[in-house]
Amino acid sequence: MLAEAPESDWQTVDPSDLVLIESARGNVVFALAPEMAPKTVKNVLTLTREGFYDGTGFIRAQDNYVAQWGDTDAAHSLGSAEKTVKAEFDREADGLTLVALPDTDTYAEGTGFIDGFPAAWEDGRAWLAHCYGMVGVGRDEPADSGNGVELYVVIGQAPRHLDRNVTLIGRVLDGMPAIATLPRGTEKMGFYATKEERAPISRVRVVADIPEAERPVYRMLKTSSASFAKLVEARRNRRDPWTKRAAGHIDVCNVPSVWQRVR
Amino acid sequence: MLAEAPESDWQTVDPSDLVLIESARGNVVFALAPEMAPKTVKNVLTLTREGFYDGTGFIRAQDNYVAQWGDTDAAHSLGSAEKTVKAEFDREADGLTLVALPDTDTYAEGTGFIDGFPAAWEDGRAWLAHCYGMVGVGRDEPADSGNGVELYVVIGQAPRHLDRNVTLIGRVLDGMPAIATLPRGTEKMGFYATKEERAPISRVRVVADIPEAERPVYRMLKTSSASFAKLVEARRNRRDPWTKRAAGHIDVCNVPSVWQRVR
Repeated sequence: MLAEAPESDWQTVDPSDLVLIESARGNVVFALAPEMAPKTVKNVLTLTREGFYDGTGFIRAQDNYVAQWGDTDAAHSLGSAEKTVKAEFDREADGLTLVALPDTDTYAEGTGFIDGFPAAWEDGRAWLAHCYGMVGVGRDEPADSGNGVELYVVIGQAPRHLDRNVTLIGRVLDGMPAIATLPRGTEKMGFYATKEERAPISRVRVVADIPEAERPVYRMLKTSSASFAKLVEARRNRRDPWTKRAAGHIDVCNVPSVWQRVR
Repeated sequence: MLAEAPESDWQTVDPSDLVLIESARGNVVFALAPEMAPKTVKNVLTLTREGFYDGTGFIRAQDNYVAQWGDTDAAHSLGSAEKTVKAEFDREADGLTLVALPDTDTYAEGTGFIDGFPAAWEDGRAWLAHCYGMVGVGRDEPADSGNGVELYVVIGQAPRHLDRNVTLIGRVLDGMPAIATLPRGTEKMGFYATKEERAPISRVRVVADIPEAERPVYRMLKTSSASFAKLVEARRNRRDPWTKRAAGHIDVCNVPSVWQRVR
């Protein structure tokens, strides 16, 4: 189905919106959503470019919930990044291209996609949805404490109750199996009991900062395209001989990823 | 919260409805739902008691989808188990105790719980829901080909489109981290490319067949109890200081497990 989509339904992802993590588990690439969380994304880009994440590791893996990386020990300096960042749990829906799914959602008035990312909306506000692979900034009790020194990714059933409680900044495009198979931590909330259990992260870079010849290149099926609508409909009503009863519905977190690595 | 539940809100799980898998990944225990799939459960019990699964292994792990075990090579005899089993994708809702959740569901008219298991219903029919940890019988194209020689478990976002397309027979109570962290298979649908990649399963037993002193014992919070209703409401509207906005809703697959190992 994706193979049939015309070239005009795809767009190349801006390498400034891509982050590459090199870790003992392999490479992980995630896409940023600056339109949804500009201040937080800016802080994460600063932390990345100043080497904050280099030498950190995966610190937490909680089964059917999230895995987390970064620095809990504040051993690394924040450099010129901000210590607090205004919460970007949601934003005005005005000015965004919301592509609605036709089905009802348990958690929100509307769900669908915003520029490739799963999202939800209600009463004029819109936010990214906590689907598998979505990346958020861990925070303490204060709403503005999510500065990006700890990032988490959803590895199980979508914890949609976290929507509008944490700032989501993007989605993992490659490397989810490596993260999802991290040994689960034995401490509370899946934190590892010892530093030795952490899978080390050697280097994290903004893809735009990598020499062009070495960069991974991604494209995204425009979620506003006819091809995407066709993909969603094909998943809502599967017509293969194995399927005995088409679902007739789809949850936003069951829509397949629209990103592809090109090179 | 569970600690406050009175003794009368719990029930001990019948050891005849529990299966213990011993594998290279550790022990896995799952509970059967004979009320929802009597013929299929009977066949799985026969296969278990006649040693069909002993010496098999985990044959498939597809990221954000399912892991599967059993025998694809038909190297093992079916013994006195049936080769085909009438599909038990759903059943009459009459005669079941349906405990409904108050929120809408994307896939069905109603969702909630039946005797501890997540479920959905519509137009007088009820079925188990494909939540994390739910166990189903793999099948080929014919609806009656799910005889139990391959069993799968959900390890990611609930694939609810499989509801009413496969017979679900129960849920994993213990051992999900071991299964969810299985290396993902590189073949189509996450099958392992080589037999060497399979995590071996040494022995599978019905817990009732294990000497009483060695048996694991489980209890279940009755999903028809006031304590369960309280638990659901506490999750729908979290009142901890970290939560800035209570969800006000809950998906059936986000309700925590109601099983506990007692011994």
